[in-house]
Amino acid sequence: MIASNITIRLKLANQPGTLAKVLTVIGQEGGSLGAIDLISASPTYLIRELIVRLNNNSLERVVDSLRQIPGVQSIYIADRVFTSHLGGKIEINPKRPIHNREDLSMIYTPGVASICKAIDRDRNLAYKLTMKGNSVAIVTDGSAVLGLGNLGPLAALPVREGKAVLFKQFGNVDAVPICMDVHDPQQIINAVVALAPAFGGINLEDIASPQCFEIEEKLSEMIDIPVFHDDQHGTAIVTLAGILNAIKVVGKKLSDIKVVLSGAGAAGVAIAKILLGAGIRNLIVCDRKGAIAKVNHYSIPAKQWLAEHTNEMCIKGKLNEVIYGADLFIGVSAPGLLQREDILKMAVKPVVFALANPEPEIEPEKIADIAAVIATGRSDYPNQVNNALAFPGIFRGVLDCHARTINNQMCLAAANALAGIITKEQLNAENIIPSIFNPNVASVVAEAVKREAKRTGVAREIQYETNNVK
Amino acid sequence: MIASNITIRLKLANQPGTLAKVLTVIGQEGGSLGAIDLISASPTYLIRELIVRLNNNSLERVVDSLRQIPGVQSIYIADRVFTSHLGGKIEINPKRPIHNREDLSMIYTPGVASICKAIDRDRNLAYKLTMKGNSVAIVTDGSAVLGLGNLGPLAALPVREGKAVLFKQFGNVDAVPICMDVHDPQQIINAVVALAPAFGGINLEDIASPQCFEIEEKLSEMIDIPVFHDDQHGTAIVTLAGILNAIKVVGKKLSDIKVVLSGAGAAGVAIAKILLGAGIRNLIVCDRKGAIAKVNHYSIPAKQWLAEHTNEMCIKGKLNEVIYGADLFIGVSAPGLLQREDILKMAVKPVVFALANPEPEIEPEKIADIAAVIATGRSDYPNQVNNALAFPGIFRGVLDCHARTINNQMCLAAANALAGIITKEQLNAENIIPSIFNPNVASVVAEAVKREAKRTGVAREIQYETNNVK
Repeated sequence: MIASNITIRLKLANQPGTLAKVLTVIGQEGGSLGAIDLISASPTYLIRELIVRLNNNSLERVVDSLRQIPGVQSIYIADRVFTSHLGGKIEINPKRPIHNREDLSMIYTPGVASICKAIDRDRNLAYKLTMKGNSVAIVTDGSAVLGLGNLGPLAALPVREGKAVLFKQFGNVDAVPICMDVHDPQQIINAVVALAPAFGGINLEDIASPQCFEIEEKLSEMIDIPVFHDDQHGTAIVTLAGILNAIKVVGKKLSDIKVVLSGAGAAGVAIAKILLGAGIRNLIVCDRKGAIAKVNHYSIPAKQWLAEHTNEMCIKGKLNEVIYGADLFIGVSAPGLLQREDILKMAVKPVVFALANPEPEIEPEKIADIAAVIATGRSDYPNQVNNALAFPGIFRGVLDCHARTINNQMCLAAANALAGIITKEQLNAENIIPSIFNPNVASVVAEAVKREAKRTGVAREIQYETNNVK
Repeated sequence: MIASNITIRLKLANQPGTLAKVLTVIGQEGGSLGAIDLISASPTYLIRELIVRLNNNSLERVVDSLRQIPGVQSIYIADRVFTSHLGGKIEINPKRPIHNREDLSMIYTPGVASICKAIDRDRNLAYKLTMKGNSVAIVTDGSAVLGLGNLGPLAALPVREGKAVLFKQFGNVDAVPICMDVHDPQQIINAVVALAPAFGGINLEDIASPQCFEIEEKLSEMIDIPVFHDDQHGTAIVTLAGILNAIKVVGKKLSDIKVVLSGAGAAGVAIAKILLGAGIRNLIVCDRKGAIAKVNHYSIPAKQWLAEHTNEMCIKGKLNEVIYGADLFIGVSAPGLLQREDILKMAVKPVVFALANPEPEIEPEKIADIAAVIATGRSDYPNQVNNALAFPGIFRGVLDCHARTINNQMCLAAANALAGIITKEQLNAENIIPSIFNPNVASVVAEAVKREAKRTGVAREIQYETNNVK
């Protein structure tokens, strides 16, 4: 029963009561009405456009019923999601339009040659005089698109464009979608190294695990700009921010709590690492088979790392066994893995981060009365853990200081800054994470990242006097 | 004695005569004054910004003299070319900004998933619902940047950004600079294949010859979007357009004239090919050693091709020997190769296209009285052969019809359309090529390219009903 926004353009006889009949039909099918525009009018007919929110399965009936109203002709009926994608979602614009031959001679030949030569003498000037200072490549091979699986690069493109919109609107970052038609990690690495010069950062995403780990790790060593796998670190940063506030709400201490994390893919591994960095000591990570423990050997290096660095007491068992006594559950795994009775096994004031998307590990409705704090990945519940809270500010920060990399300290600083946006007075069980439309989010995160980059020595100091002739 | 546009911001005592002293100093040094802006004013001082065109070697003297005027303080003095590059020249913007959670849910998760799935079912929908339908990657490895040589990818970036500005402003094409940090042809090919999915076309440029030939040829076979090496085909198209009109001016016929072409690099090879395609029969191409002829063997395949397809009478000799009796000289080679006496050896009403940039094969001033028509690559003479007349329209055309490739017929059609913009009434020896600021250029070229793409069967017909639910 998913509802869509539908645009309906109708030609209506210009007679009293015609529109009313249309609205009645829509109402009968449970449609809720948005804007009604008059597109054009004549003595005999009116052309109107209606925005209607409608369940997908009632759409056909509405269309049929509209057709049967005398004096009503449908011109087109279109899904608003589709119309909002027509022609793509981003465009590339000149910052300073050219009006005449002199403008042209400055931004293109022959004037541009002096800029090329200046950068040839001092590569760092590219940060000041080209797009490099404000641009990020959004790189995917489309092997793990949202929850949809391996759709390949072309079908992955709309998500990348959407992300570029968020990058610009929230962080004023110019982001270029790069959808790779190669899937072997080494080939992806080669292609990213090849195209890196024009960019100030690389945002990897929707690349299947475990390949994503190798790609990020090798790339970070090979190029001198930040490489950030959003499915790992973006998720980890926002999750930690939520946890910091949730733990305050229940009056516990990070160093004391028992944490059970379900999911050892990209997000799970990164969340585990940031939690350890933040001071969590008692952490058990479960994959499909149960608790990861050092008595086992894992062929995937990331899992082996988890086995060696978590679950100190080497507890074995399935998720619904090891969850016993946990103060915090974090799920980045699969829908419906937990039942109400599992939450009842947790410690007092249990905190549940059920982040599987779109269907969480347990439905919040089932545990509203027993969980102290609940967070999900969805926008229709309170406390949405959404990467869009992190990546615009993270990259704004690293671009502003021309950072060479994004280190763990910068990620922790970002999480702390994000958590700190919720004041003591605002903090409660249903408000542990700011809204992505909170206008402070990106700048607060950016400032923290930049400060930490400078403190840890990964910011570039660029001497910039070349543009000043004197 | 190169002149630059300098921006001078000064703090002036608010006393009559102070500005006059400043202007006097600038005038004494031969500076020509552009705009004078008042930035801010107070009872004691004024802040003014002056745009001054000044010889580079008098700049320091001007700065020193200004300092000695009582009541004048310089705030900054900057080269306008540099200030016009600050922060880069392009930005990436949302086509439809998001204002609220509902907008977000349509252009990003969860709504975007339906677009991904639609493209997964029908790849061609990407042309309608993503940036692919309007985007071009501008690819270089920086191995032959303008006339500056192998500066590498980073120093090559400003030219690419300038080109992206022209692409958008003249052709409404969204162009993304991709500066490759690899130089081996196969590595460049691999990287372009990897990033191709998001783009509707690939514009190669400033890649050294002969590697550029192999890269373009193999890429065209490997990917199903147009690959266009601008240094070859862009130059060839505009050159042919100019020649078509120049030959009309002198009242000769393409099939009758003798043509001598100096330069067998990227541009030379492509010009030779398009001339043969346009009906030129008597063509001699010279490289540094002289006329290319089939009695010799050439290790570079492109030169071998020229040996087999031009110079039918197998004439040998240096450029200044074989030019004897030529109706048309075309140079895409090096400055100063020809003397006035060489032009005197040509046929009556000789046409000279001296396109080496920035210094032509022979200075137009030297032959103004003996050449019937002269064209150069420079904007400060009449008849500028400028690639910007071709690439915006070419790509506008191929994007509009979702072409799979750019074939020879499309290039010929573009050249004919470009030539046709100059009407019979407008045509004269100093007006054989339209200005790049002629607002018709891109659309006329685009229409011709599109028509020819459809005629030759390389346009994609895209059935597009998915956005219409009904």
